[in-house]
Amino acid sequence: MSDTITVGIYGAAGYAGQELVDLLAVHPQAGLAFATSNQDAGQPVPGTALTYTPHDAAPLESVDVIFLAMPHAASAPLAARAAAAGVKVIDLSADLRMTTPEAYEAWYGLPHPNPELLPVPYGLPELNRANLAYAPLIANPGCYPTATLLGLFPLLEGHALAPDAPIFVDAKSGVSGAGKAPKANTHFVEVFGNLSPYNVGRVHRHTGEIEQEIAKVDDTTGPLIFSPHLLPVDRGLLATIYVQLKAPWDATEVQALYEDCYRDEPLVDVLPAGQLATLKHAVRKNNCAISVTVPTEKTVVIVSAIDNLLKGAASQAIQNLNLMFGLQETLGLLKC
Amino acid sequence: MSDTITVGIYGAAGYAGQELVDLLAVHPQAGLAFATSNQDAGQPVPGTALTYTPHDAAPLESVDVIFLAMPHAASAPLAARAAAAGVKVIDLSADLRMTTPEAYEAWYGLPHPNPELLPVPYGLPELNRANLAYAPLIANPGCYPTATLLGLFPLLEGHALAPDAPIFVDAKSGVSGAGKAPKANTHFVEVFGNLSPYNVGRVHRHTGEIEQEIAKVDDTTGPLIFSPHLLPVDRGLLATIYVQLKAPWDATEVQALYEDCYRDEPLVDVLPAGQLATLKHAVRKNNCAISVTVPTEKTVVIVSAIDNLLKGAASQAIQNLNLMFGLQETLGLLKC
Amino acid sequence: MSDTITVGIYGAAGYAGQELVDLLAVHPQAGLAFATSNQDAGQPVPGTALTYTPHDAAPLESVDVIFLAMPHAASAPLAARAAAAGVKVIDLSADLRMTTPEAYEAWYGLPHPNPELLPVPYGLPELNRANLAYAPLIANPGCYPTATLLGLFPLLEGHALAPDAPIFVDAKSGVSGAGKAPKANTHFVEVFGNLSPYNVGRVHRHTGEIEQEIAKVDDTTGPLIFSPHLLPVDRGLLATIYVQLKAPWDATEVQALYEDCYRDEPLVDVLPAGQLATLKHAVRKNNCAISVTVPTEKTVVIVSAIDNLLKGAASQAIQNLNLMFGLQETLGLLKC
Amino acid sequence: MSDTITVGIYGAAGYAGQELVDLLAVHPQAGLAFATSNQDAGQPVPGTALTYTPHDAAPLESVDVIFLAMPHAASAPLAARAAAAGVKVIDLSADLRMTTPEAYEAWYGLPHPNPELLPVPYGLPELNRANLAYAPLIANPGCYPTATLLGLFPLLEGHALAPDAPIFVDAKSGVSGAGKAPKANTHFVEVFGNLSPYNVGRVHRHTGEIEQEIAKVDDTTGPLIFSPHLLPVDRGLLATIYVQLKAPWDATEVQALYEDCYRDEPLVDVLPAGQLATLKHAVRKNNCAISVTVPTEKTVVIVSAIDNLLKGAASQAIQNLNLMFGLQETLGLLKC
Repeated sequence: MSDTITVGIYGAAGYAGQELVDLLAVHPQAGLAFATSNQDAGQPVPGTALTYTPHDAAPLESVDVIFLAMPHAASAPLAARAAAAGVKVIDLSADLRMTTPEAYEAWYGLPHPNPELLPVPYGLPELNRANLAYAPLIANPGCYPTATLLGLFPLLEGHALAPDAPIFVDAKSGVSGAGKAPKANTHFVEVFGNLSPYNVGRVHRHTGEIEQEIAKVDDTTGPLIFSPHLLPVDRGLLATIYVQLKAPWDATEVQALYEDCYRDEPLVDVLPAGQLATLKHAVRKNNCAISVTVPTEKTVVIVSAIDNLLKGAASQAIQNLNLMFGLQETLGLLKC
Repeated sequence: MSDTITVGIYGAAGYAGQELVDLLAVHPQAGLAFATSNQDAGQPVPGTALTYTPHDAAPLESVDVIFLAMPHAASAPLAARAAAAGVKVIDLSADLRMTTPEAYEAWYGLPHPNPELLPVPYGLPELNRANLAYAPLIANPGCYPTATLLGLFPLLEGHALAPDAPIFVDAKSGVSGAGKAPKANTHFVEVFGNLSPYNVGRVHRHTGEIEQEIAKVDDTTGPLIFSPHLLPVDRGLLATIYVQLKAPWDATEVQALYEDCYRDEPLVDVLPAGQLATLKHAVRKNNCAISVTVPTEKTVVIVSAIDNLLKGAASQAIQNLNLMFGLQETLGLLKC
Repeated sequence: MSDTITVGIYGAAGYAGQELVDLLAVHPQAGLAFATSNQDAGQPVPGTALTYTPHDAAPLESVDVIFLAMPHAASAPLAARAAAAGVKVIDLSADLRMTTPEAYEAWYGLPHPNPELLPVPYGLPELNRANLAYAPLIANPGCYPTATLLGLFPLLEGHALAPDAPIFVDAKSGVSGAGKAPKANTHFVEVFGNLSPYNVGRVHRHTGEIEQEIAKVDDTTGPLIFSPHLLPVDRGLLATIYVQLKAPWDATEVQALYEDCYRDEPLVDVLPAGQLATLKHAVRKNNCAISVTVPTEKTVVIVSAIDNLLKGAASQAIQNLNLMFGLQETLGLLKC
Repeated sequence: MSDTITVGIYGAAGYAGQELVDLLAVHPQAGLAFATSNQDAGQPVPGTALTYTPHDAAPLESVDVIFLAMPHAASAPLAARAAAAGVKVIDLSADLRMTTPEAYEAWYGLPHPNPELLPVPYGLPELNRANLAYAPLIANPGCYPTATLLGLFPLLEGHALAPDAPIFVDAKSGVSGAGKAPKANTHFVEVFGNLSPYNVGRVHRHTGEIEQEIAKVDDTTGPLIFSPHLLPVDRGLLATIYVQLKAPWDATEVQALYEDCYRDEPLVDVLPAGQLATLKHAVRKNNCAISVTVPTEKTVVIVSAIDNLLKGAASQAIQNLNLMFGLQETLGLLKC
């Protein structure tokens, strides 16, 4: 194992960070060298022989690549330091996702900390694989964008959507998507037995990220109307997507379009016609499960399910790690 | 209390039936005379001094009104018997909801058991109050139709929707909506931590009921695309509704439209601008909570929440009881 | 209603405080005059026309009685102020529960803020009704002590327990028992799918309170071994209690002992022989449900269930309010 | 891989059966040859290339070993057939657990179907490893017995318990322990927000199994008082065990006893002093997590947590498979 890739994780005690630690523990060619957490500094990193290091004390330059599971705005400066040191970066925050500093500022409400880094390849391998091979920096997608873009992609690529017609995405996420810090809206008593829409319409920050990536494939679509809901489960994300078509399609054609598009994708499962994707198709798995329904000849309902912490964060980051180092993309992600 | 209305409940051991029993226990002018259940016959009816009677043994003709909380097809024949005996009927099944026997057969897959009864006034008081006063039979609406129609009504009545544009309803219901009989899809282990869309598109039977009632208000709208999801909670129903407008509106205008429409409705709460309806706004309550969001000048997202067993079934049936006997509509439904 | 009792609630935005507000809304002879919350000051009090007042701005002297739903140590000084002003006090904190300042300091780790107030009648009406009538101050019991003491009382009063034998109480509480402030251990993701014992043995503060009250009835018992568990539900508390008997009893005798003891108690339900109390026997109800099982002639397993926010806090406080003012004890607590 | 052990699973579509399928998929030296289910016959076996075979159609004699995840009474006859054919058997039902046919009949209420098979080695490796090596038949323990016996074993082996003193076990299990067949008590609506004790005292069938195994280590203890509770989670089992000691012990001594006893057990984790075992210490893991608390010098509270489907069923069966074939006991059970 002299060729092992050494990895550092910043923000390793959060939910996505913990998943990264677990995935690296079973990755055959990458090993965890350090894991940072200011809050848990000195505590053992579960499943490893390490203890958490404060962010500033981590030996950034000693590793081959870092994962940044940090809040936005805190992440980009670390990416810049790593880039300067020749260390590769996979950023799970939003800092490197928007193509321009202007777009970042529009959606995040503050100037980009390191505009010189942009643009960075968008790390959704099924849509952008070619740009990820051997990339020094990769922007790992958000959880909602991952489910939504994988759900829309075949129809976008087929230029099937009615121009200017809105795309309605009704998304539901488990509570781990809200992060590990205790807040009123993640208190058990508030969530239990409840379902809460939030940031409905065009205000959730992922709206901009999704529209940016849609436009790279088809720039004729109408606005994204995006309604996330907080779901009383710990993990998992399901997006129910409503689109309107330019021309009539029948169910068989749409099903075939999806199956053809994802036939060679080991981590995207298009369900057989007549089955519907559920949260359980994806929770604690590294895949995205997709079903398509064609209620009328000009409408399609796509259901796209992922684990928000895996395909929506950590396992997708491992896909990107593998691409970045020229390895088999699914290394460490499929059962042996 | 010489003027007390005597009530019989058929199917009183199911979830909606139990709620009816509880609501009648606190109703000042109606009293429960019998409660039927073949399965629980002889067992005590919780919260009362009665025991369950088999359906056939109930003294139908001795009461002023019956509630039918029975499966469809079993309900209509009982309604016919009651009608013949001069006993009023509030039917919580689907048997009396469709205007024509043909529509019933199209959605329920069997000939209507008692076509001579149709049409029957549709028991959604906020939309159809005038036809419910002193009615001998009332068809109590389905749970999904209640939330959806109350959510759409102000825009329908204002003829604001773009003609022929589809209406997308993404609905989520607690498991009590699936009934009390144990089935694979209501097993705790299958539901826990899951979210399952089912009957997506235009196949759920409530699709026909909703479209029928929409057309009574505005017959120019496009098709209903209806996606119900099974939610891992015991009760509550939330519909997120996506519509497209004929002409531009701004958020203030839409908000005012809803507030004006429901200003005098004690059981419909339009939330203040900027707030979003959640399941907890309605669970264990008799109301419907509605919020409106206007992401673009030609789209509106309506969130409409009810308790599927109360405003979606039993408390709405009490509203209908009150109207049927000329009482204050909310009698027994508001805190004294 | 010129005789209405005016009530102020300190700490009204917490879980127990909210239940008090709701109970007062339907109480026929008591009305809410003010409700305090520093954190929510100025916000509307749900279900009322009031807004929350800061603690210091509340017109303490203008009401007949105050409920203190405050943290311990903050509560006693307010009780002292009220007592000085001739305002009655029902304290839901622990501050007035221990008989002596020494016992308080031993269990709460700080000197009692107002030792001159002690002792105060312990507000568990079923055990101590005579001392509560017209009392100026009442110490409302903790949730675990309520369930445990009601579960043990008939055997204690019958002096049936083996002297010096430990009493094992395995208790499980919903998360609202941990309070409304977001903490790591109340984060939805941490609680969901989990069950966590905490403060096992003789370290939970309720241990001292329970032992103190046991000793008032039977001072020969052995130590209390008390194991609380955090249960993944929002509300409800179930204690499974294991005791050893001095002499042999059979199941019929123990069942009769319990039924006789609680025959005239409207808020304690002894289940019929062969049935076991569950959380649902008590959640969102004002009662305590108890079942007894006699596995061997010298052991008894008692299951005692309450709603931690109602019989374990707010509805018991209303019982105490009624006793304090010479009203029917269950006024406002039973369905009319 | 010419040395691969071929395995058949009877009852492979149940919850424990599914876990066995998943564990075999990653086992390096055992492979699944067939999986039976009458109800799902012909359907694909998830995660494999197989379809379910009806029980009678399975090629029993073609494999090296079978797992029986069948109801009791249906299991023993299959075990007898396999034994006659020289095929090894690991029985996850209760049929082979009791030492004598009389004990079986006493607890299961029917004559043993194949008394000639008894006794069979009891497959709890940590207590009985020597008798499992190369055994032709193994009785895989029940879930409650596994957690309880591992929790008690160090004190039993140390002969520390007070003779004749009852052992109180308060156990809580996730709903998968009740099996996959839909029943009233596993309906989501009944379980959600509830906690239900059942079969309290000495009536649950696992009582006999636990007492039998206790007596093999220490035959002086008093009766087992066993209270299982149905917990509103899908999986996981936690037993809180209350014992009384013959002589005084301090906390350090008890902690050392447990640590010494399990020091070399890779699948039993004794938590450090001061930590308490929770469900999450064991869910979706192959271990048993144990904590000990010493509230008084003569009482101990042991908390023992397992996943009811893994250490309580399927992963323990894999331990037994490994022992039965002379492999490393944890093969396929620890992360590589």
